[in-house]
Amino acid sequence: MARFRINILGCGSATPSLRHLPSCQVVDFRDNLMMIDCGEGAQLSMRKMKLKFSRLNHIFISHLHGDHVLGLPGLLSTMSLHGKTGTVTIHTFREGIELLKPLVDFLCHEPSYELVWHEISPSGGTVLETPSLTVAAFPLYHRVPAVGFLMRETEKPRHIKGDMVEFHQVPVSRMAAIKAGADFVKPDGTVIPNAMLTSDADPCVSYAYCSDTTYNPKIAAAVRGVDLLYHEATYIDADAHKAHERGHATASEAARTALEAGARQLLLGHYSKSYEDESRHLAEARAIFPNTLAANEGMTIDLL
Amino acid sequence: MARFRINILGCGSATPSLRHLPSCQVVDFRDNLMMIDCGEGAQLSMRKMKLKFSRLNHIFISHLHGDHVLGLPGLLSTMSLHGKTGTVTIHTFREGIELLKPLVDFLCHEPSYELVWHEISPSGGTVLETPSLTVAAFPLYHRVPAVGFLMRETEKPRHIKGDMVEFHQVPVSRMAAIKAGADFVKPDGTVIPNAMLTSDADPCVSYAYCSDTTYNPKIAAAVRGVDLLYHEATYIDADAHKAHERGHATASEAARTALEAGARQLLLGHYSKSYEDESRHLAEARAIFPNTLAANEGMTIDLL
Repeated sequence: MARFRINILGCGSATPSLRHLPSCQVVDFRDNLMMIDCGEGAQLSMRKMKLKFSRLNHIFISHLHGDHVLGLPGLLSTMSLHGKTGTVTIHTFREGIELLKPLVDFLCHEPSYELVWHEISPSGGTVLETPSLTVAAFPLYHRVPAVGFLMRETEKPRHIKGDMVEFHQVPVSRMAAIKAGADFVKPDGTVIPNAMLTSDADPCVSYAYCSDTTYNPKIAAAVRGVDLLYHEATYIDADAHKAHERGHATASEAARTALEAGARQLLLGHYSKSYEDESRHLAEARAIFPNTLAANEGMTIDLL
Repeated sequence: MARFRINILGCGSATPSLRHLPSCQVVDFRDNLMMIDCGEGAQLSMRKMKLKFSRLNHIFISHLHGDHVLGLPGLLSTMSLHGKTGTVTIHTFREGIELLKPLVDFLCHEPSYELVWHEISPSGGTVLETPSLTVAAFPLYHRVPAVGFLMRETEKPRHIKGDMVEFHQVPVSRMAAIKAGADFVKPDGTVIPNAMLTSDADPCVSYAYCSDTTYNPKIAAAVRGVDLLYHEATYIDADAHKAHERGHATASEAARTALEAGARQLLLGHYSKSYEDESRHLAEARAIFPNTLAANEGMTIDLL
């Protein structure tokens, strides 16, 4: 099953409240789980959402504020107590490694799995590359260094037109090249253009996570054409001054970024706890970018 | 109101589960809150139980396992974001200060309150002394250094017999000494024994917290005569071998300690998540020490 599912474990800001938990998401890509941010309580939310520790192999930390990182030591300890095997890689800034590694090493010495700390740069770059997915970081604009993450399926093979391949007697040895877009040259020198032998590959689906940040047009450029954009929307328009003072965005600014990026869908989150619900966030964002949803704990969104 | 109330925020073991949270209690002594252990999620449990951050001034950590300490950085950060004032003192072993202080300093620099780290010794001793309460640590017997905590009201003044004091014309300047147990010597040299002027003071109520530990008769000696004994009961009799392997106690062993200590009441907790409920823990403990309760999240017990 070609699953690309976003699980929302926490979409509040700053401190856990009775309505929202701090930032945490789990991306399920073909049954491999990758966590983005790890606020306090992440391990318990994984249990509630029946997300298996055994499938979690990568954790990406956007920035070093407590509400994005303090669930990490407990999650790493618990996974070891559960006898998890394989590798878990934490992708975080150098300061994150310096701060968290001593604590984790003390509380969870000799973990049951291989624990890898992978330093990422606040200026961004490729963080992870697998045959089917790439994860890249790009700068955000917060009070402290912060990055967003863009997860994109790698280019997929073109679909073979079975009858045409048979008609032109394409040998098996050429099939990989044909799927990658090559023309076929017959033994007699005739060139069969690739477009006669294949149809377009399935689109490469992508997901972007942007939290925490003020509005900046460079973000839209970094996530251009993304299928789903999760963007922080800590405040509503009436509180835009607070957003700007504190390095955050309003729901309208999130929508503006989605619009400028040509995103397919926008998912709001990271709400300030000063609101009773997210109806105004949603209304203000939809006025600019109609295809907007408001995240909530327990929500899942399938991109495939 | 002379309140001495134990609030149970978490009474599970090792890892948070859907049934129990990791170790955390808040003792409300005359509206001053003191936390004992601070498992992940403590700050959210405080909100759920409507325990005010503004009143929390002391946090005692029994030992440095994640399920007893990992809620601390988030709690300390959140209290600063809430603008808490006054002083918060963390009482923990030297290693705890070394591990946690750098993380807390980074995530919560310039907190709104004064944060004090107070080193305590694994061999025990007085941890806190106020005019009305003393908190002492005593050794437990776990896989790593661990201490229990004994909270005891300081000796209270004897009750003045108003009519007798008036009859013997005791001057105001002598009243403090009389309340403390002194006899009264009249100007003519006649000695009025204290027992004629006063009646017994109210009893000094005490509470002991013992988690994590194997059974050891020294514990009963350390908490002799305690009013309420919270004692870990990770396992039931059938799993006693696991308790002994892992430095824990069975419910029966907790009861044995309560019996040997002459405790008034026993409160079980720190249950392994391998049980569906605590009915067997309770039955096994009550067979030895009938006045036993099983802790649960959200429970409160008033000692006064």
